[in-house]
Amino acid sequence: MVRDFSTHFKMEEKDVVKYVKEIVEFFPPEARLRVDEIGDGNINYVYRIVDEESGKSIVIKHADVELRSNPGRLLDLNRNRIEAEILDYYSKQVPEYVPEIYFYDQTMYALSMEDISDHGNLRNELLQRKTFPFFADHITTFMVHTLLPSTDLVMDPWQKKKNVERYINIELCDISEKLVFTEPYTNHDCTNIILDENKSFVDKEIYEDSELVLEAGKLKNSFMNNAQALIHGDLHTGSIFVKENSTKVIDPEFAFYGPMGYDLGNVVGNLFFPWMNAYFTMENGTEKDNFLNYIENTVKLVLSLFCQKFRKLYSETVSDVMAKQAGYLDWYLGTVLENAAGTAGLEIIRRTVGDAKVADITGIEQRDKRIEVERALIRLGKRFIKERKSINDGDDYLKILKELIG
Amino acid sequence: MVRDFSTHFKMEEKDVVKYVKEIVEFFPPEARLRVDEIGDGNINYVYRIVDEESGKSIVIKHADVELRSNPGRLLDLNRNRIEAEILDYYSKQVPEYVPEIYFYDQTMYALSMEDISDHGNLRNELLQRKTFPFFADHITTFMVHTLLPSTDLVMDPWQKKKNVERYINIELCDISEKLVFTEPYTNHDCTNIILDENKSFVDKEIYEDSELVLEAGKLKNSFMNNAQALIHGDLHTGSIFVKENSTKVIDPEFAFYGPMGYDLGNVVGNLFFPWMNAYFTMENGTEKDNFLNYIENTVKLVLSLFCQKFRKLYSETVSDVMAKQAGYLDWYLGTVLENAAGTAGLEIIRRTVGDAKVADITGIEQRDKRIEVERALIRLGKRFIKERKSINDGDDYLKILKELIG
Repeated sequence: MVRDFSTHFKMEEKDVVKYVKEIVEFFPPEARLRVDEIGDGNINYVYRIVDEESGKSIVIKHADVELRSNPGRLLDLNRNRIEAEILDYYSKQVPEYVPEIYFYDQTMYALSMEDISDHGNLRNELLQRKTFPFFADHITTFMVHTLLPSTDLVMDPWQKKKNVERYINIELCDISEKLVFTEPYTNHDCTNIILDENKSFVDKEIYEDSELVLEAGKLKNSFMNNAQALIHGDLHTGSIFVKENSTKVIDPEFAFYGPMGYDLGNVVGNLFFPWMNAYFTMENGTEKDNFLNYIENTVKLVLSLFCQKFRKLYSETVSDVMAKQAGYLDWYLGTVLENAAGTAGLEIIRRTVGDAKVADITGIEQRDKRIEVERALIRLGKRFIKERKSINDGDDYLKILKELIG
Repeated sequence: MVRDFSTHFKMEEKDVVKYVKEIVEFFPPEARLRVDEIGDGNINYVYRIVDEESGKSIVIKHADVELRSNPGRLLDLNRNRIEAEILDYYSKQVPEYVPEIYFYDQTMYALSMEDISDHGNLRNELLQRKTFPFFADHITTFMVHTLLPSTDLVMDPWQKKKNVERYINIELCDISEKLVFTEPYTNHDCTNIILDENKSFVDKEIYEDSELVLEAGKLKNSFMNNAQALIHGDLHTGSIFVKENSTKVIDPEFAFYGPMGYDLGNVVGNLFFPWMNAYFTMENGTEKDNFLNYIENTVKLVLSLFCQKFRKLYSETVSDVMAKQAGYLDWYLGTVLENAAGTAGLEIIRRTVGDAKVADITGIEQRDKRIEVERALIRLGKRFIKERKSINDGDDYLKILKELIG
C-alpha cells in the first residue's frame, strides 16, 4: 500500500523520509537522509532528519491516536493543533525562545520545526552540573511576554473569551488534574510509586496530612476554574532546551487558559531537583558550592526578574481601567506568586511520589541517598504548598530550604 | 412578500399569530387570537398570545439582530440559543421553577413557552408590599440545584469543560462587565445617571474611594475568569415571577460559566431595594414593620437555606475525591458567600448610579426621599463590597443595614 499522506496514519522512519521531501519540501528528492527517533516523552513521536551532506536538518513532531507509552489508550489528536497554534503564538511574542515552525500539517498531525539539537535538555544539563547564566533572564521574558498579553487585562475581553474557547484542552488537562493534583495525595499504591523505605513516611507526611490534602485541593480548584492566561501547562526543565546564550521552550501541548502561577511554579519547583541531587550526591568542595549557589541564585533571579518584567509590561500594556487602579497590580501579582509557590510544591511532590518521575531523583544510584532526597523533597514541597501565601520572592523559597537542610 | 419563517426576520404581531398556528402548532388554524407585546427589557420582544375562547395561551420570546432599546446596536442571536438550552437544563434540574418550554426555533430565534402571567414580577409585587413566604425556599432550591451540579466537583470534568466552551457568552458578559463592574466606578457622567443633589456624594463615596474601586476590580476579575458554575447571570427580582405558592425564573440569556456567588448575591442584593423603598416611603405602623420584617427574614432565609441545601447536595453528589477532604466544603462555600456579598454590593451600587435603574428607586416620587434612599443604598453597597470576607449569613447583612439606618 502506498501512503500519500492524505489521511492520517502513524509514520515510521521510512514514511518520515518521504514526508519531509514530498510534503514539507525541506530536502530535495535525491537527498540521502538519516532519521533518528528522539522523543523521550510518553505521548508523541519526535523524528530528527538530517542531510549529512548539506548539514541541513529538521524535526518532525508527530501525534498518533494511541498514547506512545500506553498503546491501548487513545488521545485526541487535537493536542497537536493546539501545540502548533501555541508555538505560533510564542513565535509572535518571543521568537527567540521557541524553535521556528516551518509547517503544520493538520492531516498528518505533524509539526515540522527547527532542529534545536545544538541545545541540551535543561534537566540533563543541570544534572551534568552545567550552569546557564542567562537562563533566568530568558525564561522570565518568555513567561511574562506569553502570559500577561493573553489575559483580559491586556487582550480585548472578546478575543480572550474566544481564546478560552479555542484552547479548552480536555484530555491533557485531565492528565494534569490526575497526576499533579489528585493521585499523589490520594491514590496510595494504585498509581504512586514509592520506595519501600519511604512508604510509612509518605503515609504520614502526605496521605495523613489533612491540611496538605486540603490545600492541594484548593490549588486543583484554581487550576480547573481560573481561566486567567494562556499557560504552557507543562513548563518543567525537560520542556526547556538550553545552550550557553540561548533558551528554547518546546512541547506546549498542555496549553490552556489556566492560572499563570502554574507556569512560574513549574519552573521554580523544578530547580530544586538538581539542587537536591547535587546537595546529596556531590562531594563537598568548591564545585558543589558553586553549583548550589548557581541554582539558588537562579531561583532568586527567576522570581525577581519575573516580577520586574511583569510590572513593566503591565504598566505598558494593561488596558482595563479597573486594573489600573492603585493596588490592583500588587494584588494581582501577589495572587500569581502565591499560586506559583503552591505549584512549585505540588510539582516537587508529584515528581517524587507520583507516576511521572524525574531523572534528578531516579538517577541517584545509592539507595540511602535517594531515600534521603525524596524525604527532603516531600518536606520542602509541603511547606511551599502550605506557606504559599507568604512566599513572595526567591529568599522566601530559600529560607524554607535552609530551614529544612542546613 | 409572504414570509414563511424559513429565514430569520423580526416578527410583528400579525406574524406571531401566523407563527404560533403554523410553526408551533399550538392553536388550530381557525383560532381567533389576541397578541400583546409584554416585553419590558432592553433586548428582546416578548409576545403573549391568547385564544380567549379556549383560554389557552402561550408566550413567544423573540430575538432580533438589533437591540430593542438601541436599534443601531447589533447583538449576537446566539443568546437565544443559550437561553433555550439553559431553560432546558433548568427544566431537568428544577422543573417547578421555570416556565415549560414548548418549542425552540433556531431559525426564527423564537422560544415558545408556558404563559406564566398568573405570576407577577417579583420586583413589582414587592413594591406593592406583597409578601411571598415560600420565595426563599423556592429560590434557594433553584440556585443550589442549578449551580452545584454544573461544577466540576459534581459533573465529569470532561463534560464540564465542554459546557464551559458551549456557554462562552461574549456579548452578554461584555454588557455585565461594563454595566456592573466598570462604569459605576469610573465612567462618571458618561454613562452613570445621578441626581444633581447626589453628584458630589457619588464623587466622594464612589469615584474617590480607591479602596472601593480596587475591590470592585477584584470582583470583576473573578467574574471574568472564575469558570465555576453555569450561572443565570442576571438573577435580579425582575427575572423572577411569583405567586403565593409558586416561583418561576426566566431570562437566563446572560448565562455562562462564572462564580456562583454572582447569582446568590443578585438575589440578596435586590431584596434591599424594596426594603429601602418601604423604609423611606411607608408610613410608620404595623404594615411597614411587617413588610420590613418580611424582607429581613427573607434575607436571612435565603442565606441559611442556601447553605443548608448546598451542604446537603454537596454531601450527596460531589464526586471529586479532593473536594471530599475535611474542610474543603467549608472553604468552598465560604468563597461563594464572600463573592455573593460582594455581588450584592455591586448590584446595589450599579442600580443606583448606573445606567440600568430599578423601579424601587426611580418610582420614589418625593425627590428628597429618593436622594436619601440613593445615599443609603450607596453606603450599604460599599460596605457589602468592602466587608464581604466577613459576611457569612443574613445577620451579617442586616447588622450592617442596621448600623447605617437604625
